Amino acid sequence: MELTDFKTIVADYKVIFFDAFGVLKTYNGLIPGIQKTFSYLKENNKDFYVLTNDASRSPEQLAESYHRMGLTDIVPDCIISSGMLAREYLELKVNHGTVAYLGTEDSAHYIETAGLTTLSIRELSLESISEVNALVLLDDEGFDWNTDLNKTVNLLRKRNIPVIVANTDETYPVSKNRIAIAIGGLAEMIETIVAKRFIRFGKPDAQMFIFAYEHIRNAPSIHKKDILMVGDTLHTDIIGGNKFGLDTALVLTGNTQAEDAEIRIRSTGIIPTYICESAVIE
Amino acid sequence: MELTDFKTIVADYKVIFFDAFGVLKTYNGLIPGIQKTFSYLKENNKDFYVLTNDASRSPEQLAESYHRMGLTDIVPDCIISSGMLAREYLELKVNHGTVAYLGTEDSAHYIETAGLTTLSIRELSLESISEVNALVLLDDEGFDWNTDLNKTVNLLRKRNIPVIVANTDETYPVSKNRIAIAIGGLAEMIETIVAKRFIRFGKPDAQMFIFAYEHIRNAPSIHKKDILMVGDTLHTDIIGGNKFGLDTALVLTGNTQAEDAEIRIRSTGIIPTYICESAVIE
Amino acid sequence: MELTDFKTIVADYKVIFFDAFGVLKTYNGLIPGIQKTFSYLKENNKDFYVLTNDASRSPEQLAESYHRMGLTDIVPDCIISSGMLAREYLELKVNHGTVAYLGTEDSAHYIETAGLTTLSIRELSLESISEVNALVLLDDEGFDWNTDLNKTVNLLRKRNIPVIVANTDETYPVSKNRIAIAIGGLAEMIETIVAKRFIRFGKPDAQMFIFAYEHIRNAPSIHKKDILMVGDTLHTDIIGGNKFGLDTALVLTGNTQAEDAEIRIRSTGIIPTYICESAVIE
Amino acid sequence: MELTDFKTIVADYKVIFFDAFGVLKTYNGLIPGIQKTFSYLKENNKDFYVLTNDASRSPEQLAESYHRMGLTDIVPDCIISSGMLAREYLELKVNHGTVAYLGTEDSAHYIETAGLTTLSIRELSLESISEVNALVLLDDEGFDWNTDLNKTVNLLRKRNIPVIVANTDETYPVSKNRIAIAIGGLAEMIETIVAKRFIRFGKPDAQMFIFAYEHIRNAPSIHKKDILMVGDTLHTDIIGGNKFGLDTALVLTGNTQAEDAEIRIRSTGIIPTYICESAVIE
Repeated sequence: MELTDFKTIVADYKVIFFDAFGVLKTYNGLIPGIQKTFSYLKENNKDFYVLTNDASRSPEQLAESYHRMGLTDIVPDCIISSGMLAREYLELKVNHGTVAYLGTEDSAHYIETAGLTTLSIRELSLESISEVNALVLLDDEGFDWNTDLNKTVNLLRKRNIPVIVANTDETYPVSKNRIAIAIGGLAEMIETIVAKRFIRFGKPDAQMFIFAYEHIRNAPSIHKKDILMVGDTLHTDIIGGNKFGLDTALVLTGNTQAEDAEIRIRSTGIIPTYICESAVIE
Repeated sequence: MELTDFKTIVADYKVIFFDAFGVLKTYNGLIPGIQKTFSYLKENNKDFYVLTNDASRSPEQLAESYHRMGLTDIVPDCIISSGMLAREYLELKVNHGTVAYLGTEDSAHYIETAGLTTLSIRELSLESISEVNALVLLDDEGFDWNTDLNKTVNLLRKRNIPVIVANTDETYPVSKNRIAIAIGGLAEMIETIVAKRFIRFGKPDAQMFIFAYEHIRNAPSIHKKDILMVGDTLHTDIIGGNKFGLDTALVLTGNTQAEDAEIRIRSTGIIPTYICESAVIE
Repeated sequence: MELTDFKTIVADYKVIFFDAFGVLKTYNGLIPGIQKTFSYLKENNKDFYVLTNDASRSPEQLAESYHRMGLTDIVPDCIISSGMLAREYLELKVNHGTVAYLGTEDSAHYIETAGLTTLSIRELSLESISEVNALVLLDDEGFDWNTDLNKTVNLLRKRNIPVIVANTDETYPVSKNRIAIAIGGLAEMIETIVAKRFIRFGKPDAQMFIFAYEHIRNAPSIHKKDILMVGDTLHTDIIGGNKFGLDTALVLTGNTQAEDAEIRIRSTGIIPTYICESAVIE
Repeated sequence: MELTDFKTIVADYKVIFFDAFGVLKTYNGLIPGIQKTFSYLKENNKDFYVLTNDASRSPEQLAESYHRMGLTDIVPDCIISSGMLAREYLELKVNHGTVAYLGTEDSAHYIETAGLTTLSIRELSLESISEVNALVLLDDEGFDWNTDLNKTVNLLRKRNIPVIVANTDETYPVSKNRIAIAIGGLAEMIETIVAKRFIRFGKPDAQMFIFAYEHIRNAPSIHKKDILMVGDTLHTDIIGGNKFGLDTALVLTGNTQAEDAEIRIRSTGIIPTYICESAVIE
């Protein structure tokens, strides 16, 4: 397995797309030294965006959390979250009534800013659901799984409404040795049980990349060849970037460990353009 | 769709296997008149067994519940539950240490009678799991889904142990208009997340039918041709009975409604030998 | 089920996206009267595009086939095929060497116009595969399934290369009562067997819609709200259009029959904005 | 990974079940020295059976092929093939009419000995299918995939009949470096396309083990504890044996290589009782 220096690669691109978890930060905080990468990018006039499947908080809240950790270069405008795609869907396709959701009150931000009335499944009564015109799955916290997942199943048996999954991840790490089930994992169970087709937003889906690509299109003369997607996960970041036509760099600071990288690339057939130790530019 | 009279069919068989839910009882109690079926069977010296995917209670407790509803002919010895297969597995393959479980204390009966120490996931600490030699998924009640499903996922990442699913049903009805997620539905989510292969007991699996068949083999001269499997669900009772080589009767008092029966049989390719309005013999 | 008049709907949109098979034509030729729809659209200055998963022929050949049937308004420039996405991928991501393919020589057009050397799996020898840098699945015809599908499996075991599926349909109709397995169906089998991740282009994937959307973006002031997607298939045309944020019209001249439409919408949860008898504007 | 000596293990069991391919033979012929294992078993009065998913030939033809390779101890009576389960199904459940099949004429043996009329899909005309009462998938050879798989799909759309898959393997090795798609792989594709439920016989299904177990039940006092299942494949031989309650030995002469065994056991959660270099007893 040939490792390439991240700084050398970056020279060939005008825009860098970063995954967040495992690339910029872990459960322990920032990847040590990652601030230097963003100083370098700004000095060299390279644009950057963070593409994240995290729909639990607004871009403002996400940027604020980087700020608190000491990374001030990431501002709300350079964060593209799957929650923003869910909001666009709601704006275009669900223009009245109530939108029920699974998640915290923070995550409901994406529905509220679409101008729709929100209702946590926690508060929903199955006796009065005639105004519920969509369901959005945002976060695994903020509700009681025993009662509220059963309520969700029964809501979907009674109301034929679109269901939007704003985070497709099955799990997420909570400490060095522990993971937790993410809302994407719960979504798959409910979709199987009600046998309906949910609408998923987030990497590896092309729509996530399109959304980011359109943000930079106003800037003249940026083509797909000018963009590098950087991620730690083959089956979201890398396959998604590849399919959209971007060059991709796999970093070894998150889901894919140095000792597994080669075997995983071979067994999945998901081939990054480059493999780098990390996204840190010293 | 041609309906056949249940009494007429029964004449051709020596032993009847019944599914429980949707055939003998619903959330409302017994199917009206079903007692007469068992009187008839006893008068005519026909043997009968109840094959159920319900592992939440012991055969004794299940029989007791029929007794309370007014059906006294169903005794523990004629109940074959998927929990009994789980117990046989534990006896044969896990002969020491602790068996963790998801379910109520009642459901843990099947582990205790295998002579093993039980430990509810609710009580389990991820710091002391070195003695846990198997995990059994028994019932959707008796634990907190938020914390205990996450605990289960982390247990299975740390200990490579067999996982037994003693009820493969995804959902079960709790009232005329509501269903609940069963332990089989939760099991599928966890199996996907940990990417390991679980061991499932219950219809339509052949082992459930083998277990019942062996119970009656002591009786001389019973062949598969002499047994009728009666159920309300195509993809458990009917396909399972068919595959084991039994004749099958689909009844319309449960999961399969009269208006859907024909289209479901055509769309699934699961073909019962007979279709009957109910298993009631007037 | 409420049917809406297609002409009435069209008045509200500036651009119409059409699926081809089941909307404009069937195995019998054009849907009777469909020419009038295109006369109407041109008279009223409404733009239109045909979005098709058919990668067996070039846009020029596809347009020519409409021409021969008597529909002259469909010119190559208004055809968006999944083969064009495959070509874009090859141009961006596979810039040298040989591209192997399953399909007819006509279908190989999409690879040739990407400037790459083509090699039919029919002609490939497993002894000399070191130059093969990608595999494209284009069409179910043009090769021997017995030998060439096995050759494909062995190629993918030896070379870790991207595999592109340029038509995701599982089957296609060949006459009133018969269907045939499409390359998308064969692709699923091979993907399962080699356990690698293929890259799929075609509806319902968002990339198909963004490709069409970008074509019209040069025209000023077209927003998603101004576009109607018309299709006969819920799980490709309608869910794809919905997810991309377009209004959708289901027509009953193809895969979805009038008598099934309502039940299928309810059972899948895929809800078109409108249901119309056909796309014909009298 | 701790390796155990096969001879030492065998001492603890009265009956040995062997998988065939990868345990007794490979594409190169017999595993060197395997004859000695059977001499030892006979000298020590240990019973043995070969459980194989190979339904391409009758037990007589299979025994004959071992004989030709120099292994004379394997006689037809100790071969249990998935084809025998298919035959039992046909005898019990399909008692008249014609049974269509995919496979060679040799493989049709299992249908003929059930007393039914056979018809190769190769010879079938879709115009005269009213007498076809079942379809059996036996072997990947003996028919033209292009025409006959399409014919099969159309047959199943017109006739709602049981479909039996007598070999569940997806692939099989044909030389050191090449594999071929098995009938089980083709079966999965057709099942997906027609969306019907097929009936599968073969390991890891319990029915395969009970069939073998019943063969030896006449012998007094053999319990599950007395049987060892020996195989080279975790997801058929080992999980099937485990679930049926047998002790299992994984050998490293076939599908599972020494260098992969530990990681595969950990990643699948399928845990053999023992791991042995081979089934050869020196």
